[in-house]
Amino acid sequence: MATKQIPYKIYLSEEEIPRYWYNVKAHMKNEHPPFLNPATMKPCTKEELCQVFCEECVDQELNEKDEKIEIPEGIRDFYKMFRPSPLIRAYYLEKLLDTPAEIYYKFEGNNTSGSHKLNSAAAQAYYAKKQGLKSITTETGAGQWGTALAMASAFYGLHLDVYMVKVSAEQKPHRKEVIRTYGANVIPSPSDTTEAGRKILREFPGTGGSLGCAISEAVEKAVTSDSCRYVLGSVLDHVLLHQSIIGMESKIAMDKYGVKPDIIIGCMGGGSNFGGLIAPFMGDKLDGKNDIDFIGVEPASCPSVTRGKYVYDFCDSAKITPLAKMYTLGCGFMPSASHAGGLRYHGMSPVVSQLCHDGYLRAVSAEQTKVFDAAVMFAKCEGILPAPESSHAIRVAIDEALKCKAEGKKKTILFGLTGTGYFDMAAYKQYNDGTMSDYIPTDADLQKGFESIPKCPANEGLI
Amino acid sequence: MATKQIPYKIYLSEEEIPRYWYNVKAHMKNEHPPFLNPATMKPCTKEELCQVFCEECVDQELNEKDEKIEIPEGIRDFYKMFRPSPLIRAYYLEKLLDTPAEIYYKFEGNNTSGSHKLNSAAAQAYYAKKQGLKSITTETGAGQWGTALAMASAFYGLHLDVYMVKVSAEQKPHRKEVIRTYGANVIPSPSDTTEAGRKILREFPGTGGSLGCAISEAVEKAVTSDSCRYVLGSVLDHVLLHQSIIGMESKIAMDKYGVKPDIIIGCMGGGSNFGGLIAPFMGDKLDGKNDIDFIGVEPASCPSVTRGKYVYDFCDSAKITPLAKMYTLGCGFMPSASHAGGLRYHGMSPVVSQLCHDGYLRAVSAEQTKVFDAAVMFAKCEGILPAPESSHAIRVAIDEALKCKAEGKKKTILFGLTGTGYFDMAAYKQYNDGTMSDYIPTDADLQKGFESIPKCPANEGLI
Repeated sequence: MATKQIPYKIYLSEEEIPRYWYNVKAHMKNEHPPFLNPATMKPCTKEELCQVFCEECVDQELNEKDEKIEIPEGIRDFYKMFRPSPLIRAYYLEKLLDTPAEIYYKFEGNNTSGSHKLNSAAAQAYYAKKQGLKSITTETGAGQWGTALAMASAFYGLHLDVYMVKVSAEQKPHRKEVIRTYGANVIPSPSDTTEAGRKILREFPGTGGSLGCAISEAVEKAVTSDSCRYVLGSVLDHVLLHQSIIGMESKIAMDKYGVKPDIIIGCMGGGSNFGGLIAPFMGDKLDGKNDIDFIGVEPASCPSVTRGKYVYDFCDSAKITPLAKMYTLGCGFMPSASHAGGLRYHGMSPVVSQLCHDGYLRAVSAEQTKVFDAAVMFAKCEGILPAPESSHAIRVAIDEALKCKAEGKKKTILFGLTGTGYFDMAAYKQYNDGTMSDYIPTDADLQKGFESIPKCPANEGLI
Repeated sequence: MATKQIPYKIYLSEEEIPRYWYNVKAHMKNEHPPFLNPATMKPCTKEELCQVFCEECVDQELNEKDEKIEIPEGIRDFYKMFRPSPLIRAYYLEKLLDTPAEIYYKFEGNNTSGSHKLNSAAAQAYYAKKQGLKSITTETGAGQWGTALAMASAFYGLHLDVYMVKVSAEQKPHRKEVIRTYGANVIPSPSDTTEAGRKILREFPGTGGSLGCAISEAVEKAVTSDSCRYVLGSVLDHVLLHQSIIGMESKIAMDKYGVKPDIIIGCMGGGSNFGGLIAPFMGDKLDGKNDIDFIGVEPASCPSVTRGKYVYDFCDSAKITPLAKMYTLGCGFMPSASHAGGLRYHGMSPVVSQLCHDGYLRAVSAEQTKVFDAAVMFAKCEGILPAPESSHAIRVAIDEALKCKAEGKKKTILFGLTGTGYFDMAAYKQYNDGTMSDYIPTDADLQKGFESIPKCPANEGLI
């Protein structure tokens, strides 16, 4: 226990909850290329995006100049129910690893959704209500996003339809029930309630579904109604913006104790938690004020960045969304059902993709059983049962701390503990029973996914 | 929102975690009668109790004179992982109810056990380790206690056997898996691993079990080994003592803001959370310094205090424990399996029983469906999905707040939110599906239970 004066948990006061989100795009050297309308291959207009998303979210999505974007009072009221979240010094993990490294984690799981997802759910539900909408739709994979949005919808008084990835709905019937308890309607995806769902069911009968196809269904449901919009839990710039509160609070708390991170680690599915955690630190790095090693961790079973291509691709499997320039395995890539929990998305946030492409952050991948080794080690010494998703970050934090030990270097590591694993006990049971396996796609598996990437002019020479 | 300056959540700093537990017995006018050895009908000696429990816990159990009992550094280290817990002003619930009452709740669910149980689990595992024991045994009903003790055993390095009430193990396979993940061994009770279990299986084939019979099994396992002791999650005085940290923190936080509770409400199974929550406030009441209305809430399906007898009874179903003077339905009372979660204990903490008998607190009962009405209302506006057990307190807090509204009175209500309902989704599903029913035992049902109360000299004229 090197620095006795730093408490185990650092809580900010409610007055210290940031009043602004941090828009890292205001600092980026190269903005990511714009969304393209697949019909015209031209950049999407605000009007086009507003048919799918709430107007205020579209404004935020397109904002490349303002570093600070105000958090409305109505959202801050909701945030007070679970924020500020604690920044925890992992004293017991450090001791167990016998490492000279100092390890901190920002814990976002102390709320009923069990995750960081509530940060954006609150914002998006608030803006939908403000715009006079009656209902919203969304997809959910591991169920954390669906729970978060159900909580926010109950609070602000909106109807919510949740398309839940079928394999997750089956693996996690209790997660589904939490969503129902908050008053939302849960539909396992692919379903026969949409054209997109019916098409996927015809092409892949018996599929366990994917985030991509659940997105297709939710978007279709939204665009076919006037008083309804679609709400996305990751990937998009405005979601990363809302998640920047994680990084803002972390930075305020670390500044308060004079701690400067050398390494920041987050797990990556769509990239929103990682993008949010690193945002203000990355802004400083882009301004030449630090040289932090930013590491995004993805599952080896769905290696969007580490083995994907940086091209324009659809955000969904049914090819109805705009095209985004991002690291992708191809919108037709279907991750193995053997991988537990979330992080099963074929693409990656365009902001995170661009920053990675420009060399400001790096991606690594981790295998499932090694991730659960880390999860159980962490649970036993730090007390918190982590979500499988979050445990990807724990795995790499432990690896980096052991590297410090081997090299005799004292580094400060910060990682995002995005959520709890209370609804992932079927996966933990597999691990406890010794029946969990790793799945790593072959090059041939990946090639099949790459074939679904659109052969548009913007991708010439890239695929 | 009457008092704007009070934050939504009041967190104490780690330095403010109490250094002492509060022993309410030092203030009681009438100590509760001692445990009796059923073989001799004489008060249990320290030596007898030490065959079952850790020595330090026995000393605490028998201590009637010291108000302050020091919390060792090793336990405070563990407490820092989840304490101080927040005291929350239920602004949104107040608004929804449109009540002049101010409602506060002490939230103990922000840890992986999802409950207050960790407060005593940490202490008892620490003392077992300190005494040089290799293993401990216990029972668990809803699973919160088993999880808490598994966490503490993993932290301090002890083997743990958990006898889990069979109906709970079946209703909550995931809770069982959490306990396994922390390295403990889970045995559904009644089991064929003990004489007590085999006897109950013969007498009640197909029973879903009860806390009482799980206790019998765990005690038998402990007393038949030298390096093993039994650890209980409620009822006993030393457990209430450890739980007094809930009340201590609540009092420090309320004093900080100049808030004085008029009513304090807690749910009651064995009585430890309620006893702990009220401890320092009750000490003051016993000294004539306040006139707080203390309300313990029990399920209408297991009405130990509201419909039980105040007599000497066994703490377990197999009649192998000492006799305690307490409110009881009879150690042979088997609560209906239709009641979700914990609070299924036939008896009640001797301290709480004595205080109730002397008129310093009162007990009320609540029906299951009305409890879940309150739980869902609370979840939607306050964001936290409460445990069914804790929701008994929410129900009565809402009722009291509505009474304030009807009478135009401004009162300050504090209740204990002992845990979260993440592992209770089968019960929530019943509620969501409209298939949940209430079970209220008839007088004939109760009479059957009363017949199991021992007809000993100490009970003459009482049964």
